[in-house]
Amino acid sequence: MKTIAVLGTGIVGQTIATRLVELGFTVTMGSRDVEAALASTKANMGGTTLAAWHNNNKQVTLAAFSTAAAAGEIIINATSGQATLAALELAGAANLAGKTLIDIANPLDFSQGFPPSLSVCNTDSLGEQIQKAFPEVKVVKTLNTMTCYVMVHPESVPGDHSVFLSGNSEAAKAEAAELLKALGWKQHNIYDLGDITSARGTEQLLPIWVRLYGTLKTGMFNFNIVKA
Amino acid sequence: MKTIAVLGTGIVGQTIATRLVELGFTVTMGSRDVEAALASTKANMGGTTLAAWHNNNKQVTLAAFSTAAAAGEIIINATSGQATLAALELAGAANLAGKTLIDIANPLDFSQGFPPSLSVCNTDSLGEQIQKAFPEVKVVKTLNTMTCYVMVHPESVPGDHSVFLSGNSEAAKAEAAELLKALGWKQHNIYDLGDITSARGTEQLLPIWVRLYGTLKTGMFNFNIVKA
Repeated sequence: MKTIAVLGTGIVGQTIATRLVELGFTVTMGSRDVEAALASTKANMGGTTLAAWHNNNKQVTLAAFSTAAAAGEIIINATSGQATLAALELAGAANLAGKTLIDIANPLDFSQGFPPSLSVCNTDSLGEQIQKAFPEVKVVKTLNTMTCYVMVHPESVPGDHSVFLSGNSEAAKAEAAELLKALGWKQHNIYDLGDITSARGTEQLLPIWVRLYGTLKTGMFNFNIVKA
Repeated sequence: MKTIAVLGTGIVGQTIATRLVELGFTVTMGSRDVEAALASTKANMGGTTLAAWHNNNKQVTLAAFSTAAAAGEIIINATSGQATLAALELAGAANLAGKTLIDIANPLDFSQGFPPSLSVCNTDSLGEQIQKAFPEVKVVKTLNTMTCYVMVHPESVPGDHSVFLSGNSEAAKAEAAELLKALGWKQHNIYDLGDITSARGTEQLLPIWVRLYGTLKTGMFNFNIVKA
């Protein structure tokens, strides 16, 4: 099984890392500052600290962004969208080059409160910004249109529902699709939207996702494409 | 049955007007210039001219925007998003005041080619712009997340799929929901997203809609919200 670098130690990174270990992958989790992250007593939205989570997930190696990225054969960007480009700078272009980078982040801007706006959208996207900043990495935008538990447990939402792929490399999208299937996604629910510019479309799903979260009082839902 | 003013004589306006007549409504269709529109030999995406369509839909009264708006108890904005504010100026604030305006348009900007971007998004929306420009009208954004045939024939896409409501007036949203149900929408597939600012979310569905149109090679699909 491959080694996967999960960049980001928040609830999203933790949820994905736990599931990847369960599936048999070797997981290295990247952080800006491992010691500070482990020392933090701030609980995340899942109600746990990184230290408490890691205590139950000892198979995951915690490391600096650069060490984690160097170890990973596949990179998953689970940092917050506002922090992504700085985190990838720390990961280092040389440690990313030639690899598939699965970008699940969204450029949500909470600076004006709730609901958030997007800090980049419409004629650009975070996925494209990553691809431009790191031309040697193969960015695949996917999984960013749902809450993290649904990403790795699609069976938790009943019946068919959809996940999208955007990226310039067909090989990298195929590799990402294999990982999606390992997570439980059915082939017929995986939609390839085209090149990385189509990440604009999935990132712009976030504003309605946030409103639906308000209406439904839960994040445990997903979009399904229904065809005539 | 109520009189409904459909503003806009393109394929969207025609499709909606045909269906509303079928359901027994009195329909007045508003145009910038009725004579010019009827004289146009340009076929729309449905392959028909306005004159040919009107020949088969004589019950629909064609009139200037202002005459149509004055006659309508409910107003449906089926103009193109780029033309909407100018069309509503011609319709006249006094002819709109106090009425429910169902805004099904999207601010698609094709000036840079395909795929289109949005001329307003993220921190504003066309729905909000209409509400600001015409504070006396009760704007309800709905139906703008699908192709026009699906709007008025939801049964053409099998099973459950979703339609959204955004607006500041609860009474106007209730009136819009009644119209949706008359068109065949099931109550449990109608999602009230909140006030008119939530129109940002549904208008920002267009970029992924356009990509899915490219992937699926058809516009005959819709989004369904699937809950855990």
